[in-house]
Amino acid sequence: MSIVLGANQYGKAEVRIVRVDRATPVHRVTDLNVTSQLRGDFAACHVDGDNSAVIATDTQKNTVYAFARDGVGAPEAFLTRLAEHFTGFPQVSGGRWYAEQYGWDRIVADGSEHDHAFVRSGREARTALVHADASGLTVLAGLRDCTVLKSTGSEFHGFPRDRYTTLPEVSDRILATDVTAWWRYAPGFDGDHDARFDAVRALLLETFATLHSLALQQTVYAMGRAVLEAFDDIVEIRLSCPNNHHFLVDLEPFGLDNPGEVFFAADRPYGLIEAAVTRSGVEDHPVWNTIGGFV
Amino acid sequence: MSIVLGANQYGKAEVRIVRVDRATPVHRVTDLNVTSQLRGDFAACHVDGDNSAVIATDTQKNTVYAFARDGVGAPEAFLTRLAEHFTGFPQVSGGRWYAEQYGWDRIVADGSEHDHAFVRSGREARTALVHADASGLTVLAGLRDCTVLKSTGSEFHGFPRDRYTTLPEVSDRILATDVTAWWRYAPGFDGDHDARFDAVRALLLETFATLHSLALQQTVYAMGRAVLEAFDDIVEIRLSCPNNHHFLVDLEPFGLDNPGEVFFAADRPYGLIEAAVTRSGVEDHPVWNTIGGFV
Amino acid sequence: MSIVLGANQYGKAEVRIVRVDRATPVHRVTDLNVTSQLRGDFAACHVDGDNSAVIATDTQKNTVYAFARDGVGAPEAFLTRLAEHFTGFPQVSGGRWYAEQYGWDRIVADGSEHDHAFVRSGREARTALVHADASGLTVLAGLRDCTVLKSTGSEFHGFPRDRYTTLPEVSDRILATDVTAWWRYAPGFDGDHDARFDAVRALLLETFATLHSLALQQTVYAMGRAVLEAFDDIVEIRLSCPNNHHFLVDLEPFGLDNPGEVFFAADRPYGLIEAAVTRSGVEDHPVWNTIGGFV
Amino acid sequence: MSIVLGANQYGKAEVRIVRVDRATPVHRVTDLNVTSQLRGDFAACHVDGDNSAVIATDTQKNTVYAFARDGVGAPEAFLTRLAEHFTGFPQVSGGRWYAEQYGWDRIVADGSEHDHAFVRSGREARTALVHADASGLTVLAGLRDCTVLKSTGSEFHGFPRDRYTTLPEVSDRILATDVTAWWRYAPGFDGDHDARFDAVRALLLETFATLHSLALQQTVYAMGRAVLEAFDDIVEIRLSCPNNHHFLVDLEPFGLDNPGEVFFAADRPYGLIEAAVTRSGVEDHPVWNTIGGFV
Repeated sequence: MSIVLGANQYGKAEVRIVRVDRATPVHRVTDLNVTSQLRGDFAACHVDGDNSAVIATDTQKNTVYAFARDGVGAPEAFLTRLAEHFTGFPQVSGGRWYAEQYGWDRIVADGSEHDHAFVRSGREARTALVHADASGLTVLAGLRDCTVLKSTGSEFHGFPRDRYTTLPEVSDRILATDVTAWWRYAPGFDGDHDARFDAVRALLLETFATLHSLALQQTVYAMGRAVLEAFDDIVEIRLSCPNNHHFLVDLEPFGLDNPGEVFFAADRPYGLIEAAVTRSGVEDHPVWNTIGGFV
Repeated sequence: MSIVLGANQYGKAEVRIVRVDRATPVHRVTDLNVTSQLRGDFAACHVDGDNSAVIATDTQKNTVYAFARDGVGAPEAFLTRLAEHFTGFPQVSGGRWYAEQYGWDRIVADGSEHDHAFVRSGREARTALVHADASGLTVLAGLRDCTVLKSTGSEFHGFPRDRYTTLPEVSDRILATDVTAWWRYAPGFDGDHDARFDAVRALLLETFATLHSLALQQTVYAMGRAVLEAFDDIVEIRLSCPNNHHFLVDLEPFGLDNPGEVFFAADRPYGLIEAAVTRSGVEDHPVWNTIGGFV
Repeated sequence: MSIVLGANQYGKAEVRIVRVDRATPVHRVTDLNVTSQLRGDFAACHVDGDNSAVIATDTQKNTVYAFARDGVGAPEAFLTRLAEHFTGFPQVSGGRWYAEQYGWDRIVADGSEHDHAFVRSGREARTALVHADASGLTVLAGLRDCTVLKSTGSEFHGFPRDRYTTLPEVSDRILATDVTAWWRYAPGFDGDHDARFDAVRALLLETFATLHSLALQQTVYAMGRAVLEAFDDIVEIRLSCPNNHHFLVDLEPFGLDNPGEVFFAADRPYGLIEAAVTRSGVEDHPVWNTIGGFV
Repeated sequence: MSIVLGANQYGKAEVRIVRVDRATPVHRVTDLNVTSQLRGDFAACHVDGDNSAVIATDTQKNTVYAFARDGVGAPEAFLTRLAEHFTGFPQVSGGRWYAEQYGWDRIVADGSEHDHAFVRSGREARTALVHADASGLTVLAGLRDCTVLKSTGSEFHGFPRDRYTTLPEVSDRILATDVTAWWRYAPGFDGDHDARFDAVRALLLETFATLHSLALQQTVYAMGRAVLEAFDDIVEIRLSCPNNHHFLVDLEPFGLDNPGEVFFAADRPYGLIEAAVTRSGVEDHPVWNTIGGFV
């Protein structure tokens, strides 16, 4: 068997861009980290160092900045513009455009929200991804590192015990995780991406809060299911959720009880629960193969 | 000159503790990262490996957990309890107790704040430090990594130009920083630490927002000054603020103007502005020598 | 279409284990970070919170530790033992076992290598992955974050220029990257994993060093090709390589030339080059869908 | 008491520079991260936004690059050149110049070391600091994050037990730490900084390896003492060493013994041991107040 070039992609990663909308004295800022990756007929570059078809990664970066001059809008829309531009090159057969968006709240001064001063909100990032191949564009939205915790309403028991099982069964524990989620819009979705993102995020959090949990798997599935039930134009959703263990500290040696009050927040190891929630009959979509850290 | 042991301290760092207050069905969570360090007569351990006076760092950790059983309250108060406990040992002449506190907001479910489900707020941490030496306890409060940005209202010009100066003068730029601040309470301060922290943080942000800035130094000084003006029982404050550069992207090569709209958010290098604001006649306090990353 | 559970996996991540081999006074240490993930019939847990089939992640962790009692050996072998154990459970249809291994060199004392004192070598990690599905076990080996740099022997020119292209063509530049690579062994490979890892790593570095590069894509492909040419029992290899840009600093404003001597090492954005090198006729293997951060 | 500006400093942090020495075909690379901070009469800037005395941080960055054109040499020497330059400005009364240096090994190709291809060595950084005040320049050298481990030859017992003590006494344990050290050269030291750094590092590691340890404090003190004994022109040394706990895993529930073979490498909390070793009669030097993360 001869040796051949397989799948490949290249581009510019983490183009950090802050867009200020100064249309009125009440400024708006959009803070994005954009990655552009192209696929296509680049074998000559790999095999012979022939760059005649290679849209330089620096050119990709410049294009991101230039396109931002016209405004950014929702990250899904901005990435779609990039995808449409780059797939217009004959040597480009597809690609992957990814963005993280970071939130900013207005600083309150003199009792009201300031026109042009902001403070970063949250640690989490809103994420978006546009994937292009011969079948067209696919749009995903998501979030990562949305850290949530329940101080009760979580149990874990009934699991099998073998030689290596020492975990006690518990009927009350802290349940905590950092939610990473990706949902895929049906082709042709033309809703308001910002409003939809807010609605999905709120629903994920609300489901985490309200489901009495017998396992993090159950919570994860319920979160995904709630999104699919609420929005017909979301085809499927995938979640990746570490189980951020909080261990009840044994205070008995010090003559103290500990009725669910003092916990040690562990770093490693941690559980890791990953699941897709989909609709019957939906086929595997190739975009998922490009998502890191998931099934 | 003979070789001798100099200054030294030891303890347990980063004791991660989550305290759930279940007094009512509306739970409250306190999320702390506590470091305890002791100073005193520990020469025998260093020189001869004689541990007879060494309060094990594991014991310090256990003490943190045990004390949390009685409730945590404000981090300044919790650290004071630890300081008073450990300085009660005859071999301990002083020490340093440090905590970071992480914020949690309630998740909104069914239109109201949930009783026992939370989402992490912000990337910043509230900080507290209690320092003990022969003169007694000193209490500092602070915050770190509070990221703020102004999209206008910042200039930088009038600086000297030498052979190595290429920076253009600008009358409008983005000003952005990650505020780290420490303020020292007057001995005997017995106010409400939580309320005070909120008030100082709000004042720092409001000053950042409202001062028309001619230099980050001016902004930093004004932020500190505002705190000292507002609160007589704060003796001094120190701020350390990187200048998170946002460079206006040159879009001319693409036939586009860029009237303060598209910026590249740079990582490194960055400016670094550090200043103390104090009151006339205040002497150097040894606690500052223990604060990392500052003057 | 009804809503259904899709692909899912769960387990314990980042089980940090240090194994000391004390068979002789010349100790050997093995330092691993192990992640175990199971796939199979876990729908009842997701849908109903029924844990009767769920091998607890804590049990998976315990199993890792218990298996290490018998020795660890090469990470590929250790993960294979775990895979064979867990796929023996009737509800487990497959899984994914991943390890990072960190290197330790012996400290030199009194002119010779010490028996039981070590210093961490390198920032990179050796990686291994065993994947199980209905077709059996698949073994991958790799490395990540192996940072390399060439101070010459790299050009980049001949790329197309469009409206957004400003990059000058260069005939001499610094080429630097952090190599992440994964190679897949043919089924039944029973060679010495440690020796093979060393040989592949050396070949990757040697190829990086000796190829006169016209594009990072060319270097990446050559590195992969060299491995497949050298080892028939490696089926395919995938590489993910950022282009760690080093920009020549413009010293002209200071009256100085800069003949390839002073560079600014940029953080972001960076190029990102990813490619598979395979053999003609090799079909897509599902293991690649589980590799994060790749095509 | 009126509110006044206290101690302050400002500058450019983390100027990332790679210097290629191309004097012969056997290239040499120097990889530095430089921070320059100035102190002096900058009150007008803080109080009034008057920048007429402010040497822009951008100018400081440019100066670092321009000075690198003449070669870098040892980081201590490079920082000294910067210090001498900036303290030549009338408004500058002092400052602090800090560098981290990252190591590169030559890649072996065709059996010998390559002329211009390199692979990053180690995770640790060599550090240097030049401090200037009215008394002149002070030079420190150091290292950080040098991770070491002993698999035996470490005990910990004989510590006092109180209500909160649960730690068992052990006569054999893993001892592991990440060494951060700073040593101060006597004024006028004019030795070979590169050779001296290598010698001190080797001595620190050798002492860690060979001392049978009864406490990490004893090891830390011995490491510092060994340096002062070996080098008269080093006035004092400070070490900051976390105790990277490796806990013996309890395998009894699985019917297995664990004679010092299988350990869990914990993240947090960790012990933290910090000590200065000095010479009798040496007074406190203000440079130590600028060292973060130490006593």
